[in-house]
Amino acid sequence: MFQEVSTFKRRQVTPNYHRTCRLSTESTNSVVHVVGTSLEANLSRCAPPRSKYFSVKCSPKVQYSISPPPQETSHLSPIPLNGKSTLHFSMSHASEHENDSKLCVWYYGKNKEELGRAIMHLTAVEISLDVDADRDGVVEENNPNKGSWEWGPQGHGAILLVNCDSERTYWKKPDSEQNFVSKVSDLKDMSMMVLRTRGPAKLPNGYKLTMHISKGDAESVRVFRSRSSEAMSNSLSKIYDYFVKDFPLVLCNEVLSQEVPYLGGKAEMTFYVEGLRFPDKDFDGLIRISLSLLEPIGEGLPETPIFTDKVVFRVAPWIMTPNTLQPLEVFVCSTDDNYQFLKGMKNFIQKSGCKLRICHEYMNRGDRWMQDELEFGYIDSPHHRFPVVLDSPRDGSLQDFPYNELLGPDFGYVTRVAKRKDVSSLDSFGNLEVSPPVTVNGKNYPLGRILIGVAFPTATKGRNMTKVVQDFLWAQAVQEPVALFSDWLYVGHIDEFMTFVPAPDKKGFRLLLASPDAAYKLFRGLQKDGYGQAKLFEGLRNEKPITVDEILNDERFKEENNYVQSCIDWNRDVLKRELGLDDDDIIDLPILFKLELEDENQYRALAYYPDMVNMIVLGKNLGVPKPFGPKVNGRCVLEAEMCSLMGALGLSCTFIDDFTTYHKLLGEVHCGSNVRRQPFGFKWWNLEK
Amino acid sequence: MFQEVSTFKRRQVTPNYHRTCRLSTESTNSVVHVVGTSLEANLSRCAPPRSKYFSVKCSPKVQYSISPPPQETSHLSPIPLNGKSTLHFSMSHASEHENDSKLCVWYYGKNKEELGRAIMHLTAVEISLDVDADRDGVVEENNPNKGSWEWGPQGHGAILLVNCDSERTYWKKPDSEQNFVSKVSDLKDMSMMVLRTRGPAKLPNGYKLTMHISKGDAESVRVFRSRSSEAMSNSLSKIYDYFVKDFPLVLCNEVLSQEVPYLGGKAEMTFYVEGLRFPDKDFDGLIRISLSLLEPIGEGLPETPIFTDKVVFRVAPWIMTPNTLQPLEVFVCSTDDNYQFLKGMKNFIQKSGCKLRICHEYMNRGDRWMQDELEFGYIDSPHHRFPVVLDSPRDGSLQDFPYNELLGPDFGYVTRVAKRKDVSSLDSFGNLEVSPPVTVNGKNYPLGRILIGVAFPTATKGRNMTKVVQDFLWAQAVQEPVALFSDWLYVGHIDEFMTFVPAPDKKGFRLLLASPDAAYKLFRGLQKDGYGQAKLFEGLRNEKPITVDEILNDERFKEENNYVQSCIDWNRDVLKRELGLDDDDIIDLPILFKLELEDENQYRALAYYPDMVNMIVLGKNLGVPKPFGPKVNGRCVLEAEMCSLMGALGLSCTFIDDFTTYHKLLGEVHCGSNVRRQPFGFKWWNLEK
Repeated sequence: MFQEVSTFKRRQVTPNYHRTCRLSTESTNSVVHVVGTSLEANLSRCAPPRSKYFSVKCSPKVQYSISPPPQETSHLSPIPLNGKSTLHFSMSHASEHENDSKLCVWYYGKNKEELGRAIMHLTAVEISLDVDADRDGVVEENNPNKGSWEWGPQGHGAILLVNCDSERTYWKKPDSEQNFVSKVSDLKDMSMMVLRTRGPAKLPNGYKLTMHISKGDAESVRVFRSRSSEAMSNSLSKIYDYFVKDFPLVLCNEVLSQEVPYLGGKAEMTFYVEGLRFPDKDFDGLIRISLSLLEPIGEGLPETPIFTDKVVFRVAPWIMTPNTLQPLEVFVCSTDDNYQFLKGMKNFIQKSGCKLRICHEYMNRGDRWMQDELEFGYIDSPHHRFPVVLDSPRDGSLQDFPYNELLGPDFGYVTRVAKRKDVSSLDSFGNLEVSPPVTVNGKNYPLGRILIGVAFPTATKGRNMTKVVQDFLWAQAVQEPVALFSDWLYVGHIDEFMTFVPAPDKKGFRLLLASPDAAYKLFRGLQKDGYGQAKLFEGLRNEKPITVDEILNDERFKEENNYVQSCIDWNRDVLKRELGLDDDDIIDLPILFKLELEDENQYRALAYYPDMVNMIVLGKNLGVPKPFGPKVNGRCVLEAEMCSLMGALGLSCTFIDDFTTYHKLLGEVHCGSNVRRQPFGFKWWNLEK
Repeated sequence: MFQEVSTFKRRQVTPNYHRTCRLSTESTNSVVHVVGTSLEANLSRCAPPRSKYFSVKCSPKVQYSISPPPQETSHLSPIPLNGKSTLHFSMSHASEHENDSKLCVWYYGKNKEELGRAIMHLTAVEISLDVDADRDGVVEENNPNKGSWEWGPQGHGAILLVNCDSERTYWKKPDSEQNFVSKVSDLKDMSMMVLRTRGPAKLPNGYKLTMHISKGDAESVRVFRSRSSEAMSNSLSKIYDYFVKDFPLVLCNEVLSQEVPYLGGKAEMTFYVEGLRFPDKDFDGLIRISLSLLEPIGEGLPETPIFTDKVVFRVAPWIMTPNTLQPLEVFVCSTDDNYQFLKGMKNFIQKSGCKLRICHEYMNRGDRWMQDELEFGYIDSPHHRFPVVLDSPRDGSLQDFPYNELLGPDFGYVTRVAKRKDVSSLDSFGNLEVSPPVTVNGKNYPLGRILIGVAFPTATKGRNMTKVVQDFLWAQAVQEPVALFSDWLYVGHIDEFMTFVPAPDKKGFRLLLASPDAAYKLFRGLQKDGYGQAKLFEGLRNEKPITVDEILNDERFKEENNYVQSCIDWNRDVLKRELGLDDDDIIDLPILFKLELEDENQYRALAYYPDMVNMIVLGKNLGVPKPFGPKVNGRCVLEAEMCSLMGALGLSCTFIDDFTTYHKLLGEVHCGSNVRRQPFGFKWWNLEK
């Protein structure tokens, strides 16, 4: 008798979605039924006293079953009634008119005389709130998994972007900070959600559809509706074909529940959902949106939700890009003293086929540390993707640059605000890097792992990256961070002792580490070969040259560098463990440090000559601080060593003179630049967790 | 050459725990080595220039290997050196004296002439920070899983209690609010943690042990140390054998890292760990404690952690107890008007073999709603368990009772503070119940599921349980809550329409639901049988009796009850779905409601006669509000129906007259009492997630 011909592709609502309804022998009831659910009525509850038998009849579109199942009898003869007799009924198609189906139950006494009858009129509707749960960019019909999230290529669950770009280019602010759609182009930053309905031209009197979210989720999401009543295509690309008059706000922090129109017949209504905040310590990134059909009860009584459909979104995380990804744009500051450096960088960047973007002095106000004020990343979904800059709480003179110059159409902005007293030099984003993809003890990190520098966890004092930024980074959950020890450095940034370069073999990259031991080894070899009198810092103004012999003879200096080597070795051990590297994946670069006595009676390290590891990586081209090392046959041995090590990987070094305007100010090429890169090909939602 | 004879039961530190160390041909290095880890030295890094070969020799307790493995040669003949030659070495036993082992590397030139040698002195120590990771009440040695948490009977991970009881009985406050151990009995509320060490009498100069936690975790945990240096047994029961002089505070919110003594030889040092806060929205319940060995570097330089051992605790959740658990104590208020009720309760409680605890008027100040001010629960760990009262933000005149009368030794206290304006009648804990254990679509809830009452999620206005309490309940994560709809009730508590009673068959319980339909059916049967003139409310002072006929003839009243039935049916559907119940698990009790016009022009429901479902369940004895229903042959038909329904389950009903002093004040027996019950036999950490 049951017929399973649904007009919906895969009709599968919450399992066991039964609704209890009441039969009455006193008046005819009317009920609205949602296709895919079932109705249930206890037959004895409303039976006239002394009822012993019943029989059921219904119009052709209604299916029913009785439990406990009646004994084998003719379908027309009365069935014995007991306290547990229950009628289950449903309809598999939407009604064309209100009350166009009917169900009737007759009650009989012990002699099978009729004692009464209960009549129920039925109106069936189809309702489905739909999202792109299979992540193909199309809002499919009633995906059975639309109400939950699962990671991985076999997973499911729709994706939401934080609408953190700005459609406007003047008086701009992130679109998520305004509760209206200002431009039609803003819609493509949002996720489409479609309400598909089918039924009579209008719902029976007093019934209505309501969309709702919880108070907790309302902090993180906003829903707009397309006022256009025409059926819209699923494809986001088509939204421009319509002239969009208005997109009323449906749900937000102030409105947790709102009625949405029922269009009648077979209809689709389009909603646009925007994320308002990134995952964080107190937000796991999941958002639920529900759509309920409400039944009217009476004056002064709240309507009862008789059917609820739910969809789930996960807010896309902010993702960082490692050195192995293709560079797109390089950002460098222009200051009143760095013409020479800028010229070197321009040549290098041009050679690498990248775009150079200069931040001029009116904006940088003398702050040249482009690396430190911001970190480039991106957000991604099946329907859209754009870069997002994470603004550091460092807030040097460059502080307005990310908001004023980068934020714009399809360029998002996010920051974390820390108390002034909690911000230290370790909050500069030279202290925030990301590894290339790695596999560690069988666990894949196809988006790499974030690396930050902190004080030893055992230290009773020391500088740290501020907690709000660390919490943010951890909460993104797709590039699980690793904490390194960088507080031993005067400036305190991990880019002072490490970087990654692409490699044609092995894991596809090498970790480069600064190594005083490697420098001593090189210099001792020079001495042995009779070049002990070769000089560092030759040809530099205001810099006294020093010989290899002098360096090797300085016992105190050697001790300092032993200490630096032990600090780097500590990080080397952590990096090997947490990134699954072995010694062959690591290259030691000959770099020396010196210690400076800082406040708190603490010694901290600085690069002694330009810190070659603090380089900029543009594909196979490396922009390396010119080290001004000792020369043999007119060739700097540090440059030669660097070229030899990198050349073996097919990489080409360009040495850039940053001595006076960066090195002497405690930074180098990497500190003074920033690179926006191509996003990963790998989709974050395909991560296996 | 490798020998695996460890003095530790299962020596298994973090996999790949290698430490890079530096050889030197210039001076003899001394290194402290932790048994179970390995040391690694790059042989070419410190090789004298032009070294082509090397050889290695070490004292008997040192094991080493070379990578890449040398070709098949005599062990004494020099091995060719290349840039990647690495020496791995370790010791499998603790040293008895400082520097009692030695490793030596010789370097040779191309003619195998010696160019230099690097000597390293080794001191090995065994270090293990231990907890009860296998949850048997004993702190085992170096459990390989001590650093992580896994749910389930095959899981692992140590457990921490929130130290929320008060050892003091005067001037009391929860022990977690003071940062010292006031009584030795307080130690049993804490989790033992043991630092096991073995090595020379003292660590080489400048080395030290440090215990540390992260800033985030420090909000939730405090660590004390036993100053006694004698080895202590693992068994908590033995701590009383010692005279405890002092338990210094090691770690807390203000001290994230502190040195702990190294005792020398084979030693155990005992720590006591207390939880400070329950899992909540911003706290997943996991806490990490680390112990590091620090190596001195030099004046003004931070010591380097060269080995870190980590343990994980999960804070035990607060657990509620359903009606099916054995009652221990019943709490009732004594007021100036409830002598009769109290007498009825006393008799009933005595019959059930329970302890009665009366809250007297000086404490309750006229507030009789013992159910509403608090909820009894407990916390549990392998080493200790005690009841914990959750104090409602309702804060009626009874508000001081939980803190002043219940908090005490082995009786914990927890509350959540809400803004006055956010607190409604739905925050009373008559609106907070828990189901017996259930299985839903194959998912087990062996501790049942918490039930709370709220407004419809679709409602644009309406009362709700306050967010801080809901967040707390959800965060406990072992009795996943279900939200019911209770805002349709004037008072708004789920105990007005539902309860659970034990049953000998099926799922071990029945859900009882108030049912106007069942009442109408009963009354219509009476009318049919000629008892239409039987009266309700007979013999009650100030209450006008009313006949069955009059009730059945009141159309408006019938409509109101139809509405009430639809509200209860809505909850019935949710309960069936979320608790995996079928109709046979539910019993409808004949109860009628009436609607009252409330503020905001909203009608809400009240029990018309004493609400029998609002009962107190003590094992097989039910204390039921006396309904004062119509009588047939001198017997109240409501009582008779109740006794018949409950009798079939082997339960006995005692009807308690609460009409004047509870029912007329909008509550009944359940609202006016509270029961502390035996905890579950099932251990929460055995939950499968």
